[in-house]
Amino acid sequence: MIRTHEAGTLRAEHAGERVVLAGWVARRRDHGGVVFIDLRDASGVVQVVWRSEDAASHDLRAEFCVKVTGDVRARPAGNENPELPTGAIEVVAEEVEVLSEADPLPFPVEGSTEISEDVRIKYRYLDIRREDTARALRVRSTAAYLLSDVMRDHGFVNVETPYLTRSTPEGARDFLVPVRLRPGNWYALPQSPQLFKQLLMVGGLERYYQLARCFRDEDFRKDRQPEFTQIDLEMSFVTRQDVIDVGEAVVSTLWREITGYEIPLPLPRMTYAEAMAKYGSDKPDLRFDLELTDLTSYFAGTEFRVFQAPYVGAVVMPGGASQTRRELDAWQDWAKSRGARGLAYALIAQDGSIAGPVGKNISESERDGLAAAVNASPGDAVFFAAGAARASQELLGAARLEIGNRCDLIDTTAWSFLWVVDAPMFEETDAGGWTAVHHPFTSPLPEWADKFTTEPGGALADAYDMVCNGYEIGGGSIRIHKQLMQQQVFDVIGLSPEEARSQFGFLLDAFKYGPPPHGGMAFGWDRVVMLLAGADTIRDVIAFPKAASGADPLTGAPTPITPAQRKEAGIDAPPKPATPQG
Amino acid sequence: MIRTHEAGTLRAEHAGERVVLAGWVARRRDHGGVVFIDLRDASGVVQVVWRSEDAASHDLRAEFCVKVTGDVRARPAGNENPELPTGAIEVVAEEVEVLSEADPLPFPVEGSTEISEDVRIKYRYLDIRREDTARALRVRSTAAYLLSDVMRDHGFVNVETPYLTRSTPEGARDFLVPVRLRPGNWYALPQSPQLFKQLLMVGGLERYYQLARCFRDEDFRKDRQPEFTQIDLEMSFVTRQDVIDVGEAVVSTLWREITGYEIPLPLPRMTYAEAMAKYGSDKPDLRFDLELTDLTSYFAGTEFRVFQAPYVGAVVMPGGASQTRRELDAWQDWAKSRGARGLAYALIAQDGSIAGPVGKNISESERDGLAAAVNASPGDAVFFAAGAARASQELLGAARLEIGNRCDLIDTTAWSFLWVVDAPMFEETDAGGWTAVHHPFTSPLPEWADKFTTEPGGALADAYDMVCNGYEIGGGSIRIHKQLMQQQVFDVIGLSPEEARSQFGFLLDAFKYGPPPHGGMAFGWDRVVMLLAGADTIRDVIAFPKAASGADPLTGAPTPITPAQRKEAGIDAPPKPATPQG
Repeated sequence: MIRTHEAGTLRAEHAGERVVLAGWVARRRDHGGVVFIDLRDASGVVQVVWRSEDAASHDLRAEFCVKVTGDVRARPAGNENPELPTGAIEVVAEEVEVLSEADPLPFPVEGSTEISEDVRIKYRYLDIRREDTARALRVRSTAAYLLSDVMRDHGFVNVETPYLTRSTPEGARDFLVPVRLRPGNWYALPQSPQLFKQLLMVGGLERYYQLARCFRDEDFRKDRQPEFTQIDLEMSFVTRQDVIDVGEAVVSTLWREITGYEIPLPLPRMTYAEAMAKYGSDKPDLRFDLELTDLTSYFAGTEFRVFQAPYVGAVVMPGGASQTRRELDAWQDWAKSRGARGLAYALIAQDGSIAGPVGKNISESERDGLAAAVNASPGDAVFFAAGAARASQELLGAARLEIGNRCDLIDTTAWSFLWVVDAPMFEETDAGGWTAVHHPFTSPLPEWADKFTTEPGGALADAYDMVCNGYEIGGGSIRIHKQLMQQQVFDVIGLSPEEARSQFGFLLDAFKYGPPPHGGMAFGWDRVVMLLAGADTIRDVIAFPKAASGADPLTGAPTPITPAQRKEAGIDAPPKPATPQG
Repeated sequence: MIRTHEAGTLRAEHAGERVVLAGWVARRRDHGGVVFIDLRDASGVVQVVWRSEDAASHDLRAEFCVKVTGDVRARPAGNENPELPTGAIEVVAEEVEVLSEADPLPFPVEGSTEISEDVRIKYRYLDIRREDTARALRVRSTAAYLLSDVMRDHGFVNVETPYLTRSTPEGARDFLVPVRLRPGNWYALPQSPQLFKQLLMVGGLERYYQLARCFRDEDFRKDRQPEFTQIDLEMSFVTRQDVIDVGEAVVSTLWREITGYEIPLPLPRMTYAEAMAKYGSDKPDLRFDLELTDLTSYFAGTEFRVFQAPYVGAVVMPGGASQTRRELDAWQDWAKSRGARGLAYALIAQDGSIAGPVGKNISESERDGLAAAVNASPGDAVFFAAGAARASQELLGAARLEIGNRCDLIDTTAWSFLWVVDAPMFEETDAGGWTAVHHPFTSPLPEWADKFTTEPGGALADAYDMVCNGYEIGGGSIRIHKQLMQQQVFDVIGLSPEEARSQFGFLLDAFKYGPPPHGGMAFGWDRVVMLLAGADTIRDVIAFPKAASGADPLTGAPTPITPAQRKEAGIDAPPKPATPQG
């Protein structure tokens, strides 16, 4: 090393030692005769004192990279800085060598200035010098090391699966890659290692894991990246409990070691049906209680046309009756922006009487019992949704979160983990058919094994999602390993044998050779690290993220390519079949 | 778990216990009245005994996946199998449940049959059940866990760099990826994280590492894959010695823990010049001694036209004088297949006289001193190369390896590690210019800093390659962090400012903001694991390799794509500039 010590590690006991440091000029202050430099390296900051008669001292600017040779001494009495780990000492510089200079900065590296995210990404190499970003990347690294420990302790085999794999015509959102040496033929980048990890189970590895990059050419949205990372794991000869145990070991280790929070285990479990009924979400945020009320039977005989629906429900906004007309109107806009027609509401006056539009339309007895039915108090507002159960519950669930935020019901220092289990296997498509909610290898619950074909709408999957603070951070299922059952699922979702063969042919082939019962899960690694780091978006925990637009302001990617590149890559070559699939 | 024990863990002390096992039928033997099953799971094999009156026992075939419930008992005296860890006991099955059946196999999973590699890859899920392949993948996993330990112990930050990045017109062999949402614009898959890891150093992370996938659309060759993995690392404020220390820590841990071999540290170092002179290779295999002899001065005054060359050298083949005419001719073909005109030779007879074509052309005094000059004994053959030094040395170096193999000089149980340092910075291009031997960020040795521009042919790089048993398994360099020096290198290699900007613009921008002195290296992970696992090719240590042809017989990738896919992916959209690069 060209230095003898790391700046942030110097303490009182180093006083009297000659040290060589190397790092960046965080701050520079002139104090008649001496220059003070805050010297920063990865370990922290130390104060360097330099005679200002050295002419070079005046040329030092922020973020110059320098090497300092000097002596550690105790700071003069009264000048100690107890807030700084190195605050008891300073380094009296004998020599300061500029290793490299810095142009004027696009934004300050020190201090907590608001900086537009695009600028931060464009100058990511400067953003990473900032304390928050550096810390986020270090949390991610620590988490990866811890993950490695947990998986090794649990006997998992770390396997790298291919990133250049098979494209299928049905693989919407696949990134495609032309192959120069087989012009006209293309690889696809995998959206997940799902097929490969199941092949590894057929291969008898029994416990596989990987921190896997995944690729999806999806519409850009806040907190979505075209490439993202997941902890991918799969196990053979297991029940749901075994996978859940591993999933809990992963998060409990990460949270204990990184945040100091001991997650109470086992995590609570809630069925999908209960989560939807109580919280209007398959990833309920349980940092606050507020539950939905099912009013379907309460309004079973109602004459109010809007509530003559398969489902009527409500959620209470504590103190919401005092909202202004404008605030109440804003709820209507909020609901419309979510695709609903509006958000019916009633206001409970201090005397218990019911105001607001719903109050006018329901009967006197319906009015009288309402507050008790929804457990509302005078001064509260009640929001209603009526219609198809799932859509209505989701609207109320979203309203619940809005209420939680607006009414400060959420303890932002809390952690709330749970498993949501037994999701439906299928959901109806717009065309009236069925599609797999997870993926078509998801096994039904044992009690649905014999009847999911005849009652697809009610069939429940042997699936489990881990939820933290309202985010789905992981999920998985027990897989189907019997050919007959797999064929039945394809039949339900209307996947023809040809389509199944094109998409999953090699997995179906593999399943002819003694596949073991198996199951697994995946965690969204970016999201997990975001929560661990206390970051606002996954972009804050990705070293070089794409901007929200999908472009990379740092490298300029993606870019147009030249005709020569097109030709070289074989992009316009006529398709010639590659090795036919067996 | 659906089993209580792992098959391979059962021992004499389990006798009397009721167990439930799950695994595969490795072998099945009928012995009048009883059926013996070798049950295999990831932990090993155990013998199961089953009454053959159970009709189902006759339907069991190899690689059926089964669950066995039964009692462990000591094997009858005399029937123990000391070669099997479970050989003291057997499991008397009460019930055998078939979890899934297996079709007749394309090749046997048990036993060491020769199987064509394409078939092994096509049925990789069966190949992975075979002992050697399973073991290779487990070695790779163990190595990854150990690597994680070493890098954590050395304070490295594990960072994931992007796989969807900028394509540049100059980036030959880049895989390109069209972007649906920015039609006409393309990402490229990175050939290495080189630029990003240097950005992380500018960002002040100081120690970065990653097990990084790399992509290169290269000509298919034995032991080359379009995607491969490297240990990528970079460090700030370091000298060459610091990077070398980390590199040695990595291999010494891996070899100690996986093979039991304690690598003597520090590794020997040899300059590139010495490696070329003595072994005719920049990755010499030192498992055997045989050195080249430089005969340039010996033949300085020769009248033999062929030896009137800038370099004349020789390598001795012990006992080679007894080769038949056909064998000697075969050497000529061998040399021609390597692009040489032939391989001059002399044979040293038992009486010390010199036979063979060279003997006839050189002078008597040249003949008389030859054996001593090359340190050959009666009965040896001497092979010569004359011409440009490097090409001649490489020919002799290749001959040396051939001799090592043919004469059984190589101790195949030995490990020979070394560093080859101080490679040339530049090599001449066919057009008479210069190109960077490593990459253009490689720093010259300090003593060449001021003169590499004027003497590019002699300039040496501050570079180091790690060699094991004749394979280059890793390499790196101290990088340039000064703008002026970087510009000088671009000038030497004739890279115009526009080209430099297009290829490395964002790195050059970053270097305006106080870049630290830094250096790093990368290991070829596939190769390292191949050596650790004792495998023949890197394909044996890749879970799902491409075949030598670049195609994947398992998935059928790459495939043609449909017009709809072309349209969807925006492949034929007219190029529109993306966000311009700053």
